[in-house]
Amino acid sequence: MKPLFSSLLQLRTRGSVLLLPRTMSERFGGKHRSVTMNHAYNTKGENATKPTERYPMPDKKDLPHDIIEHMEEAKVKNGFLPNVFKVMANRPEEFRVFFTYHDVVMNKKTGNLSMADKELIAVAVSIVNHTPYCVIAHSASHRKYSKKPSLADQVAVNWKMADLSDREVAMLEFALAVCRADNITEEHFQKLEAHGFDREDAWDIGSISAFFAMSNRIAHFTDLHPNPEFYIMGRIPREKEKTSSS
Amino acid sequence: MKPLFSSLLQLRTRGSVLLLPRTMSERFGGKHRSVTMNHAYNTKGENATKPTERYPMPDKKDLPHDIIEHMEEAKVKNGFLPNVFKVMANRPEEFRVFFTYHDVVMNKKTGNLSMADKELIAVAVSIVNHTPYCVIAHSASHRKYSKKPSLADQVAVNWKMADLSDREVAMLEFALAVCRADNITEEHFQKLEAHGFDREDAWDIGSISAFFAMSNRIAHFTDLHPNPEFYIMGRIPREKEKTSSS
Amino acid sequence: MKPLFSSLLQLRTRGSVLLLPRTMSERFGGKHRSVTMNHAYNTKGENATKPTERYPMPDKKDLPHDIIEHMEEAKVKNGFLPNVFKVMANRPEEFRVFFTYHDVVMNKKTGNLSMADKELIAVAVSIVNHTPYCVIAHSASHRKYSKKPSLADQVAVNWKMADLSDREVAMLEFALAVCRADNITEEHFQKLEAHGFDREDAWDIGSISAFFAMSNRIAHFTDLHPNPEFYIMGRIPREKEKTSSS
Amino acid sequence: MKPLFSSLLQLRTRGSVLLLPRTMSERFGGKHRSVTMNHAYNTKGENATKPTERYPMPDKKDLPHDIIEHMEEAKVKNGFLPNVFKVMANRPEEFRVFFTYHDVVMNKKTGNLSMADKELIAVAVSIVNHTPYCVIAHSASHRKYSKKPSLADQVAVNWKMADLSDREVAMLEFALAVCRADNITEEHFQKLEAHGFDREDAWDIGSISAFFAMSNRIAHFTDLHPNPEFYIMGRIPREKEKTSSS
Amino acid sequence: MKPLFSSLLQLRTRGSVLLLPRTMSERFGGKHRSVTMNHAYNTKGENATKPTERYPMPDKKDLPHDIIEHMEEAKVKNGFLPNVFKVMANRPEEFRVFFTYHDVVMNKKTGNLSMADKELIAVAVSIVNHTPYCVIAHSASHRKYSKKPSLADQVAVNWKMADLSDREVAMLEFALAVCRADNITEEHFQKLEAHGFDREDAWDIGSISAFFAMSNRIAHFTDLHPNPEFYIMGRIPREKEKTSSS
Amino acid sequence: MKPLFSSLLQLRTRGSVLLLPRTMSERFGGKHRSVTMNHAYNTKGENATKPTERYPMPDKKDLPHDIIEHMEEAKVKNGFLPNVFKVMANRPEEFRVFFTYHDVVMNKKTGNLSMADKELIAVAVSIVNHTPYCVIAHSASHRKYSKKPSLADQVAVNWKMADLSDREVAMLEFALAVCRADNITEEHFQKLEAHGFDREDAWDIGSISAFFAMSNRIAHFTDLHPNPEFYIMGRIPREKEKTSSS
Repeated sequence: MKPLFSSLLQLRTRGSVLLLPRTMSERFGGKHRSVTMNHAYNTKGENATKPTERYPMPDKKDLPHDIIEHMEEAKVKNGFLPNVFKVMANRPEEFRVFFTYHDVVMNKKTGNLSMADKELIAVAVSIVNHTPYCVIAHSASHRKYSKKPSLADQVAVNWKMADLSDREVAMLEFALAVCRADNITEEHFQKLEAHGFDREDAWDIGSISAFFAMSNRIAHFTDLHPNPEFYIMGRIPREKEKTSSS
Repeated sequence: MKPLFSSLLQLRTRGSVLLLPRTMSERFGGKHRSVTMNHAYNTKGENATKPTERYPMPDKKDLPHDIIEHMEEAKVKNGFLPNVFKVMANRPEEFRVFFTYHDVVMNKKTGNLSMADKELIAVAVSIVNHTPYCVIAHSASHRKYSKKPSLADQVAVNWKMADLSDREVAMLEFALAVCRADNITEEHFQKLEAHGFDREDAWDIGSISAFFAMSNRIAHFTDLHPNPEFYIMGRIPREKEKTSSS
Repeated sequence: MKPLFSSLLQLRTRGSVLLLPRTMSERFGGKHRSVTMNHAYNTKGENATKPTERYPMPDKKDLPHDIIEHMEEAKVKNGFLPNVFKVMANRPEEFRVFFTYHDVVMNKKTGNLSMADKELIAVAVSIVNHTPYCVIAHSASHRKYSKKPSLADQVAVNWKMADLSDREVAMLEFALAVCRADNITEEHFQKLEAHGFDREDAWDIGSISAFFAMSNRIAHFTDLHPNPEFYIMGRIPREKEKTSSS
Repeated sequence: MKPLFSSLLQLRTRGSVLLLPRTMSERFGGKHRSVTMNHAYNTKGENATKPTERYPMPDKKDLPHDIIEHMEEAKVKNGFLPNVFKVMANRPEEFRVFFTYHDVVMNKKTGNLSMADKELIAVAVSIVNHTPYCVIAHSASHRKYSKKPSLADQVAVNWKMADLSDREVAMLEFALAVCRADNITEEHFQKLEAHGFDREDAWDIGSISAFFAMSNRIAHFTDLHPNPEFYIMGRIPREKEKTSSS
Repeated sequence: MKPLFSSLLQLRTRGSVLLLPRTMSERFGGKHRSVTMNHAYNTKGENATKPTERYPMPDKKDLPHDIIEHMEEAKVKNGFLPNVFKVMANRPEEFRVFFTYHDVVMNKKTGNLSMADKELIAVAVSIVNHTPYCVIAHSASHRKYSKKPSLADQVAVNWKMADLSDREVAMLEFALAVCRADNITEEHFQKLEAHGFDREDAWDIGSISAFFAMSNRIAHFTDLHPNPEFYIMGRIPREKEKTSSS
Repeated sequence: MKPLFSSLLQLRTRGSVLLLPRTMSERFGGKHRSVTMNHAYNTKGENATKPTERYPMPDKKDLPHDIIEHMEEAKVKNGFLPNVFKVMANRPEEFRVFFTYHDVVMNKKTGNLSMADKELIAVAVSIVNHTPYCVIAHSASHRKYSKKPSLADQVAVNWKMADLSDREVAMLEFALAVCRADNITEEHFQKLEAHGFDREDAWDIGSISAFFAMSNRIAHFTDLHPNPEFYIMGRIPREKEKTSSS
């Protein structure tokens, strides 16, 4: 029997990979909220919706069925289709493996990293690489998971002056050492351990940092720009939002 | 007669310096809006309001009368007192000359730089120096003047990938050359001229960049942090805001 | 039906993913040669075989069946098991998606990049990140595919002084711009086009560069070291080798 | 009453701002010496007197009275008019606030910084920014105040190898951390305290460093060049000088 | 009597300088082996033998007798003439003093540096300067002296991840501090002493590093390329080599 | 006959090497002037004469005769013994080859580089490496040869803003490209040719830059400090000097 296939079969049985589309949309808020925001936030006066023209999304009729299904599900759940899906659709094989990899590292359920921790790493790494899409999109996700409306902005300007716990500082120090492709020594691991991160957590932090080293660069050569919805997402407490959209 | 004094007398007659507090508050929105925002935006769960403890604001009774007057006027007009006033109050002489200098370069009425242009330069320079207060506060001002809710965020991540006009790119290229303390050559001026900026505009851009070279560094050694109100200011179109606060 | 699974089913039918283990071993020479080399090249006096102790390979009994199958196949075909398989075996899910991603970008059959081109990009990017495993292993692969025994060494020291064609220089310039997370502009694409690389080739170059941005960093935090066999592989023309091992 | 004005009135009463022109000329030696030097040091063979042509000094008839008064006083006292006055005269408002700011930070009478200390900071910061005017002019001032004819030259080449006391090293370390726009932490303050600098001294050092961050950049975009008199000033002990000019 | 000459006369008597050509050839293996290698390693398909055309070797008839003698001796002993001799022959005076300097620092018999240590320093420094000739040629020498076929390659990619002893790490740290033109402090010497290197050894390490700072740059402006023979030299244990060439 | 020796015999006959001590002293002014300066310039109040304690000069009785002769000749001619002789005396063999190399590149009589040009290169390169001895000593030499009392100071701060001819700029651009260990391409040579420098001049510029790459680093690890006499040398026109010392 073919080994790779069998392993993917296992994945399917356990369902972890299949959670990808669901988690992605969860990451960017529920349907109703997003739709509301689209009404409230008209960006026509500003060219923030600059279409990703370098590699425009292929016609649906030219896309494999599974890619279309993924994109539609993502659109329904987010209220808009994040531009990364449009760009990656140019390469169905890379689309599949890219989003699978994303989910493996970002949606891992075990270990000591919270969803907010993972998004914070994504922001900090993407700032180093000056990648608009990843900074803006993952800042939005961080606001959503952390319920802290300004911490991601602080990290984006200067993570060392941000209102971070010592534990978060240690986590970002490791992530950014990996991001810079520093030599990682035992001393790095000891510093993590001092804040409750074991070797498996270190791998998780390293893997997220490494994944964004890749995705930041893909965003650069594909000229990927953030959807305008990301900028405002999670900035206003939900109570107020609901009220104002009623 | 003592020359410096007479010149400052002239300034008073023309009133330009005296407009400072008025302009500062104008920069950060009117009273009602800010007050509303303070209600809507409760940051207690997040430590974004970290007090500037390194050089805490002196007691009012120890401050000169003119400093107190300035601060109260700024507070009334903004709905909150920007932290830079609290920190600079530690040094009344520097307080006076710092805010006067700020106004001379930021509120200059002649030339081809709009208020939004000036704020954009402030953001771009402050990002290079990783100065949270200046990035966050001047991003807020930029949103207010430009009516573009996400351009400052784009510039903060990567100004070369932001939705800027060629004219804005030329302006920021000059500002950032000054910011890096590059040698400024005739070629720099020619590039500006190609986009309608004459030598006086070049001086204006250079002065703003140089002023933030100074103020960014003051912010660093005084450990100046942004007021939480700045993060959300100008992100939501006023129409909606009015509705939601009614 | 779940979309991601169905797409992987398609992959299986077409067999492209399944070629991974076969291609990996092909990359590092055939069985007989490697076995011979192991005899000829005794590294005991030198500590080049430093075991990857930071994340030692799990016991086989703890590994999923498909991971074991992959590793055994790789070992048989190479004559030795490349250390990257041992390290990645610590994380079966990441093992699967990492090697699948590797194959998607490195074994793509269409476009203008030869196998030697792809390996050259891997070497050039990995040198920037100072990653021993990836430089040494992909230099070996490059020697094998290109039949040029010293070009990879030249690129490792100073690619701009290496004996490269103008086409190869253009290819590496793009790959390294992506590697540095530079902003990628239309000018970059035009330079590629001048040497016969279209937009799809640009994506291929960019994807390889981005993939190694990730894998270099994984190598760093896992402390991955090259197998000693890589250093000599492909340095001696096969004719001589056969003679000497007979 | 307008607050800013009243504060400047106070300044006048206390006279600190009014001392500016007097102090500036004091900084660069008395009248007789300079005049002598102008005779002895003929720079016609060398183009060191390169006129500042980018922003030439406006005609006197176009300058406000107070600006002219300042410049004449400076010229009389120095024996020559430092080029910075000529350039800043293009912008009377900036002229006033720039020299006021200079005096506030450079002529502050309280605290533990000597005049020589302040000039040393100016040299060290201006070297980082490669600003000829500020390095040459403030090296001259340092020689005058410190009576050390070569220390500024040493600092200009390599401050860490200069003949500095530990106290001066600590002072420059802080000044240069501010100069580089580093994050300034409590550790920085503790290092200063170990050498007798309290928090108010730290502010003074930081303010001087920040002021030259600004003035260095103004010098760059205005293409400000040192007057030739600065190069030799303070190099020869006054006794000898007097003798030789008799 | 003229002092410099007399000292060189002394050198002759002691013979140390005169050993230069002998040592150079010794460094690159004996005659028979090289000749064999030339047969086995045909680089025609690869342009590694790129002639050094920028400063082509002068005609023998135009060269001083002593230069010719040196070159012939080097050729006989190495089995090939290293390109550095061809390039330097353009300047007989520099040829003499360059190779004399090389021998003074590289062949010094006293102190704690082995021949392999010296070559390792040469490799590490030359990698920093990205100098192909010096990296490739001295890697070959290191393999020969150390009998470690892959350590130089490791150092070339990332010396901090190479299989080095703590003593070698300390040695390279000092050499690279000198290479970067760092300020060298007492702390540097103490670290060396902790690994058995006294002040004379420190000078030796520093001198080698400084010499290659010079020779690397000469190699750059003369466009010096490695002879193809260097790439394979010392990679295969001599026993096998003898067998295969018999 | 031993080749190297014979070549050095030739050198002696032509006398070029033997001119070294004479030229070195010539470089730093005649005897009378220096002696005068020593009286006029008392540095006791300033610690500029910091002795080079790291490698103190050996006792004369332990030095070879030729080294002593050289040093005495240098002292007589300069009026003081430049510290570089004291430090290098620790290693007689390196002393000989170092000063010979210096003279070969700095005193070469052919080609288009003047003595002032060569000293300017030495200053510009030594500034990059922040080497006090070489900057201060060669600035003194430059003042002497060029009769321009402030050009070296300008180059020390910012060579691109110095009062240099286009020819000098081209020369320094090449020298600094070599200094940075840049890859030197045909384009570099073409730029030189546009200013009248042929390939032999390029070699000369490159050799001087490379020599100071070495000597700057030797100065760093030996902690070499400038003699105080260098700081003032050549700053005052000779006519005045003679008068004042009479």
